[in-house]
Amino acid sequence: MLEERIRLAQLRDRIMTAEEAASLVLDGMTVGMSGFGAAGDCKAVPLALAERARKQSLQITLMTGASVGYEVDGVLAEAGAIRRRMPFQSDRTLRKQINAGDAMFIDLHLSEMAEQLRDGYLGPVDVAVIEAVAVSEAGIVPTMSVGNSAVFAALAKKVIVEINLDMPLELEGLHDVYLPLSRPNREPIPLTNAAQRIGLPYIPLDPQKIAAIVVTRKGDSPNKVLPPDADTTQIAGHLSSFFAHEVRAGRLGASLQPLQAGVGSIANAVLHGLVDSGFSGLRMYSEVLQDGAIELLDAGCVDFACASAIMLSSEYQTRFFEGLDRYRSRVMLRPQEISNHPEVIRRLGIIAVNTALECDIYGNVNSTHVGGTHMMNGIGGSGDFARNAYLSVFVTKSLAKDGDISSVVPMVSHVDHIGQDVDVIVTEHGLADLRGLAPRERAQQIITHCADPLYRDALRDYVAKASKRGGQTPHLIEEALAWHAHYRERHSMRPDQTLPQASQPVAEPA
Amino acid sequence: MLEERIRLAQLRDRIMTAEEAASLVLDGMTVGMSGFGAAGDCKAVPLALAERARKQSLQITLMTGASVGYEVDGVLAEAGAIRRRMPFQSDRTLRKQINAGDAMFIDLHLSEMAEQLRDGYLGPVDVAVIEAVAVSEAGIVPTMSVGNSAVFAALAKKVIVEINLDMPLELEGLHDVYLPLSRPNREPIPLTNAAQRIGLPYIPLDPQKIAAIVVTRKGDSPNKVLPPDADTTQIAGHLSSFFAHEVRAGRLGASLQPLQAGVGSIANAVLHGLVDSGFSGLRMYSEVLQDGAIELLDAGCVDFACASAIMLSSEYQTRFFEGLDRYRSRVMLRPQEISNHPEVIRRLGIIAVNTALECDIYGNVNSTHVGGTHMMNGIGGSGDFARNAYLSVFVTKSLAKDGDISSVVPMVSHVDHIGQDVDVIVTEHGLADLRGLAPRERAQQIITHCADPLYRDALRDYVAKASKRGGQTPHLIEEALAWHAHYRERHSMRPDQTLPQASQPVAEPA
Repeated sequence: MLEERIRLAQLRDRIMTAEEAASLVLDGMTVGMSGFGAAGDCKAVPLALAERARKQSLQITLMTGASVGYEVDGVLAEAGAIRRRMPFQSDRTLRKQINAGDAMFIDLHLSEMAEQLRDGYLGPVDVAVIEAVAVSEAGIVPTMSVGNSAVFAALAKKVIVEINLDMPLELEGLHDVYLPLSRPNREPIPLTNAAQRIGLPYIPLDPQKIAAIVVTRKGDSPNKVLPPDADTTQIAGHLSSFFAHEVRAGRLGASLQPLQAGVGSIANAVLHGLVDSGFSGLRMYSEVLQDGAIELLDAGCVDFACASAIMLSSEYQTRFFEGLDRYRSRVMLRPQEISNHPEVIRRLGIIAVNTALECDIYGNVNSTHVGGTHMMNGIGGSGDFARNAYLSVFVTKSLAKDGDISSVVPMVSHVDHIGQDVDVIVTEHGLADLRGLAPRERAQQIITHCADPLYRDALRDYVAKASKRGGQTPHLIEEALAWHAHYRERHSMRPDQTLPQASQPVAEPA
Repeated sequence: MLEERIRLAQLRDRIMTAEEAASLVLDGMTVGMSGFGAAGDCKAVPLALAERARKQSLQITLMTGASVGYEVDGVLAEAGAIRRRMPFQSDRTLRKQINAGDAMFIDLHLSEMAEQLRDGYLGPVDVAVIEAVAVSEAGIVPTMSVGNSAVFAALAKKVIVEINLDMPLELEGLHDVYLPLSRPNREPIPLTNAAQRIGLPYIPLDPQKIAAIVVTRKGDSPNKVLPPDADTTQIAGHLSSFFAHEVRAGRLGASLQPLQAGVGSIANAVLHGLVDSGFSGLRMYSEVLQDGAIELLDAGCVDFACASAIMLSSEYQTRFFEGLDRYRSRVMLRPQEISNHPEVIRRLGIIAVNTALECDIYGNVNSTHVGGTHMMNGIGGSGDFARNAYLSVFVTKSLAKDGDISSVVPMVSHVDHIGQDVDVIVTEHGLADLRGLAPRERAQQIITHCADPLYRDALRDYVAKASKRGGQTPHLIEEALAWHAHYRERHSMRPDQTLPQASQPVAEPA
């Protein structure tokens, strides 16, 4: 069996325990690990590293594709082994360390990590640890994600390969690995349709660089998405109606444009909502495929889906593995530099659907910072997609914390996406189409269609008072963040409890 | 002489006065006009339109390349003729109307206007008015800019051509007009080096669509840039030293990477500063070429420069026209969709230098909104370049209004460029290299190297107090915009005069 997995005989000599392999990682090193959304992350070496870090001084700079499972970020963070982390995370323990200033988190656009590594200022990648289905003299066949593994393999001084026997060999053929050349020899990325194969079905790697092989047997952590609820079903409905409207207006064809859907329960629910929408022949060009994407493939709504990772619930993992022969021609995994590349996103004309933590009345979006200060997960690929998409949609429930937080505020407490990059905002109450509108017009749309009625009057009051002072983007600058400050003090933004009266208009200084 | 300019005999029958041509524009229409940075804008039809608007109801949606001269935006605004405006402006009268809410300004990424027009939701372009050197049965040869003229010509129902006899025929051959195909037939843009010709030397246009030709004789409004001063010379010096450092570190070659420099005096001074820097073989891939670019070409530092417009002072206009035979092989004008295209900017690895109005301690940049509310000019191409550049630099003087404003603040009052898109910030005091740093680390760099000493202690105090509350990006949310509010009230941000003591740390709600 190992002959099928480790196809170069000499490499079988490099099989060792996770502890032995982990000993290649020294204090202060930069380590690039596979994994994107807990799909295809390493299962053994991180645990061994954490074990060692509990006994001796060991802190690393950890680079991955995106978030990875608890058994990477969580376990390493608990052991105090993460000094620096990029480009994304979603682990509870690590998040606490980041927000305490104990771990430095460099929150990057997911497409840019590979560029920055090639550009050299992030320093060398000392060791790469990559989960694989198989390894040969040509390279390694990744598992459920490609992420940054190809660039790690290319740049790392040493590579540790984790051969995961629980990942079916039939995953081979699912990957399409293309990396842009270094400048000035960079050529156009030849991809002109979502389903096109432009690279290799494996990550090229000189076997000389493989310093260790660790054999594991463990599935990816199941992806936890909440099932659709009344609000997310409404959001999906508004978006489907809007797409139908755009088709009738002749701006979209019947199979729309290639779809991207961000990570998380709301985006997943939006995809679920498309199952009964009547659209067919859809394609996905996304960074991750969640359960909703498999559902759409199974329902025949989606013909083809590519991304950088497949992160599924237990039920869908089983379904996916059992149906691999069926899915292999309709699903493709690409490096995240390609799945999220501005060049390709702009060329294909993606419809991007991402989740907002909050938005403001002018359509700026906060995707990352709770209360303007505390990191949730990271910007991920939302900036890659939102700026370059044909249509950039942000979805959010209009309320959080039982109504004590309005997701529509006068001014977002942190900006990840500027108004120019936000075409449409959808909440359970409705959809605001902001295309071609000036900020004052955007405010009317957003308040009317997206804000919860509980907060609409207060928002209208704010706009009215701010507009008297003038401006392209009217604000009462001394009160613009008052809703957040009041939530911080009194645990509620509710107008009856916490909002001060907007001050009387003051004459603008000449 | 007109035979050389209007090369299809039947078109000479369509010569008419500006008033007659302007009568094609009716109240409520959308008009696309040539012009980018007052280069190559129309000289006669806008004046005639304004004249008519003073007598009868006439309001239009005005689209251009970028800003245009006073005799377009200023005169039309004074006549009350601009209802909606996109994608950029810099006119005093129009700015007042925008900030009063009387004219709706849709502030767009310059590369995206053409996409949005093709996508159809901005509505049809009723009339295009394009200044040209010459017109033939194949199309029109533009003057000092290409801007959005090619997409206007392609989409407009009717085209008015202004043949400007003061623009030398020798401009022919300077332009390279390539427009991406509509999706799904979009191919990669074949441009792989800044000097490559990929399109036509004219804007293709069916002569049947030419409804009027107006003959003019008038130069572009001279570009007003302030001469380098002590501060801008310092800024240029810091940046040159940084480039030299990057060359020594092996991250840049001796001829750097293609340069973009934003509009304005500081960016121009930065280019001026490169003349004596010792770099040679440089290339520019920019949106506009100002005097500094011509200076670098003349000095032999720059081999080749392309952009979407050439906006020069009177002195440099003369120099440029007299040397056209010399410049023609070293200068190229492209549609702004190409000069600013994310695909090309990322592929070529541009060094982008743009001007900030203010930045914050975490490296977010405000390029557009004075006091967070009042529009200055617009985001222009800065977002196209900053997000996709190899190196995104923002320059600003550390102080404004005789020191009453600090350009480095706790939180910017409006975000145009998020931290991820800002690699380097330079003021006269120094340069902060933010690459690979987490927000808390960025704050130290920016305060130490960029803030004026007058404000450094107050900024450090803010960071120290905010950091006690924790967070990836620490803020005292209730005071984050206090500097702006105090400037508004008391006309100064100076700590001795206006800044409140930061409040005592409050325990974070669980």
